[in-house]
Amino acid sequence: MTQATSISEIVILNEDSVTLPKGYKAGGMHCGIKKKRLDLGYIVSEVPATVAGVYTTNIFQAAPLLVTQESIAKDNKIQAILVNSGNANACTGEQGLKDAYDMQKGFAAELGIQEHLVAVTSTGVIGELLPMDKVNTGIKQILDIENESELLFKQAILTTDTCIKQIAVQIQIDGKSVSIGGAAKGSGMIHPNMATMLGFVTTDANIAHEDLLFALKDVTNQTFNMITVDGDTSTNDMVLVMANGLAENNQLTKEHPEWDVFKEGLKIVCESLAKKIARDGEGATKLVEVQVDGAFSADAAKAVGKSIISSNLVKTAIYGTDPNWGRIVTAAGYSGVPLEPNKLKVSIGPFTVFENGLPSTFSEVEVKEYLELETVKILVELNQGDQSATAWGCDLTYDYVKINASYRT
Amino acid sequence: MTQATSISEIVILNEDSVTLPKGYKAGGMHCGIKKKRLDLGYIVSEVPATVAGVYTTNIFQAAPLLVTQESIAKDNKIQAILVNSGNANACTGEQGLKDAYDMQKGFAAELGIQEHLVAVTSTGVIGELLPMDKVNTGIKQILDIENESELLFKQAILTTDTCIKQIAVQIQIDGKSVSIGGAAKGSGMIHPNMATMLGFVTTDANIAHEDLLFALKDVTNQTFNMITVDGDTSTNDMVLVMANGLAENNQLTKEHPEWDVFKEGLKIVCESLAKKIARDGEGATKLVEVQVDGAFSADAAKAVGKSIISSNLVKTAIYGTDPNWGRIVTAAGYSGVPLEPNKLKVSIGPFTVFENGLPSTFSEVEVKEYLELETVKILVELNQGDQSATAWGCDLTYDYVKINASYRT
Repeated sequence: MTQATSISEIVILNEDSVTLPKGYKAGGMHCGIKKKRLDLGYIVSEVPATVAGVYTTNIFQAAPLLVTQESIAKDNKIQAILVNSGNANACTGEQGLKDAYDMQKGFAAELGIQEHLVAVTSTGVIGELLPMDKVNTGIKQILDIENESELLFKQAILTTDTCIKQIAVQIQIDGKSVSIGGAAKGSGMIHPNMATMLGFVTTDANIAHEDLLFALKDVTNQTFNMITVDGDTSTNDMVLVMANGLAENNQLTKEHPEWDVFKEGLKIVCESLAKKIARDGEGATKLVEVQVDGAFSADAAKAVGKSIISSNLVKTAIYGTDPNWGRIVTAAGYSGVPLEPNKLKVSIGPFTVFENGLPSTFSEVEVKEYLELETVKILVELNQGDQSATAWGCDLTYDYVKINASYRT
Repeated sequence: MTQATSISEIVILNEDSVTLPKGYKAGGMHCGIKKKRLDLGYIVSEVPATVAGVYTTNIFQAAPLLVTQESIAKDNKIQAILVNSGNANACTGEQGLKDAYDMQKGFAAELGIQEHLVAVTSTGVIGELLPMDKVNTGIKQILDIENESELLFKQAILTTDTCIKQIAVQIQIDGKSVSIGGAAKGSGMIHPNMATMLGFVTTDANIAHEDLLFALKDVTNQTFNMITVDGDTSTNDMVLVMANGLAENNQLTKEHPEWDVFKEGLKIVCESLAKKIARDGEGATKLVEVQVDGAFSADAAKAVGKSIISSNLVKTAIYGTDPNWGRIVTAAGYSGVPLEPNKLKVSIGPFTVFENGLPSTFSEVEVKEYLELETVKILVELNQGDQSATAWGCDLTYDYVKINASYRT
């Protein structure tokens, strides 16, 4: 929270999601890409919405990402998002590209809107062609009233996820109630710079494209790009924010007096989704939060946080409730940031375990008990400046190996 | 091998190690740092030897590394190496530094040589002080004849290793027989830019310090720095090469006509040790070799190779004998190298699994059978240039999690 005033103006609604903002509906169904679970979902706005997106940095961007980015580039507006799970439509060549266009075209026809107003996105196995007969049949049925449900949408986007991820906030802008809702999926192949994750955020705010994109990029760097499950950056990651303006506030820009309130609301939504993705990391039993304070730059703080949260040795130690601070210090030490060993302080929860270059005296039993909690917080104080960053991840368990040794075959 | 002639001149001796070169002896014993296993070892040369070392890039360098580097800087010669396992003497502050100096001083006194001619090094748990009473008692006994044995040395340097790692080669320089022998330890916390590993190489070659260091750095970048087990770079990594000149060849320099033979011999020793460390990665069941060809630069080839060999998803897939080429392509895609997706070709063993941006037709059963072998080779052809690199690692298994969830406590 950037200021005290903004806190009182932001209402957090844990049970709501993408259809809380005015003018949105969502739905989901089983079309047959997966054996049984839901695999096709949509969000539709009553009117075209201003859109901003951030995408994977992987060179091998999946076909739907190429199609969606091209479409958004036309006039920075979309009215609908179509998602399938179970198949990533990645590394699928010309046919994959054609399939992504066909998904867009088919759903636009059902909605009676222009094709470029439909964003398409996919998640699942890489390198297999979509079963387009099933997808096309699904597209013809998905707008049927029995499929309309925010819950069905949230279920339809999942892969190895064990739970749905949602959050919404309500804020006041120009005396109007503005809502921001989000839903996400993501569990494996999660790493900074976009994860194997999809994030969908809707708002009824009235906001200019360039400002929405500015806010999304800034917030993403502090939230989605600060989580890791396994260090693998997927081909399909995407976060889309739609803003349809139905809240009728004066258009938000960086100069608007309540700009900070909007951005804080967007950050709460993205941070909540990011943490839920980290907690639901494949095989994870715990959410791990690494806060780095006292860095000489924000990038240095991020680098140290990411290095620790990505360390397999730190992750397995936390799984084993082992207060192995040496692995935390080691991971900080190879982050590439010029730390000063004698200034470093490391705490696990309320317990100081390392200070001034030396191990602290602490109760192994107490720290072990703390590590049994479902959320583990590590604080690393560099004492070199005043910049901070927070990274989120999870522990590394037998189940991670199990899930990933046999995901595909 | 750089040239056909050098192959015929290099004899590889798999059963020999650091005492094959003239004038070296080695030994090991149990002094009490560990409960039962050997934990103190030495190598001694009859005469002071030219030395070259490479060290961890971790900011938190352990005390013995600081002491050894300072000593070597005096005149680039050492005559002895003292190693303990079971305790890394890292993050131990002033007392740790004093303990490292005391180890050096004590062993120098036993040998009757100057203190700076003794290199000290440690491996094991971080953040605990050495039990110096036990170490000092050990130092007084270790030169006893019953402890003198190359095998005991190789055992004394191990931690979570499941086997000793050794290799030796014999070459001809100026018509003289020159030997190079090596022993190493390393199993976890293994990553490019030096791993939790110690490597000890001895040779009786006559060679100038600066040329030995040049050769070691170049060879290390192609061998020890191309292995990974878990992406964690330790505080204690070190490779030392001693060259005592007893082979009586003319002094080797980069201009010596047989320079390439020496360098190739050194490379064979280092590559063999590096592969043995990767194969013995904690919990590993397989050695994985990733060869990258056709890169526009050697650094690009290395970056792609390291990215693939470090991917938890690739490593678990190999453990599960899953021909999941999508994860290999994905890891190449986030390496940071500007690849051209449509030029990429990926092979698993003799089977092409991805070509021209598309999956190839292959027999899942045959590739699965190949993945059951103890050595798995992945070839990635970028088709962007003529540079190559090879990286080595291992699979990620339940046992890795087991070992690291409970290593310390």
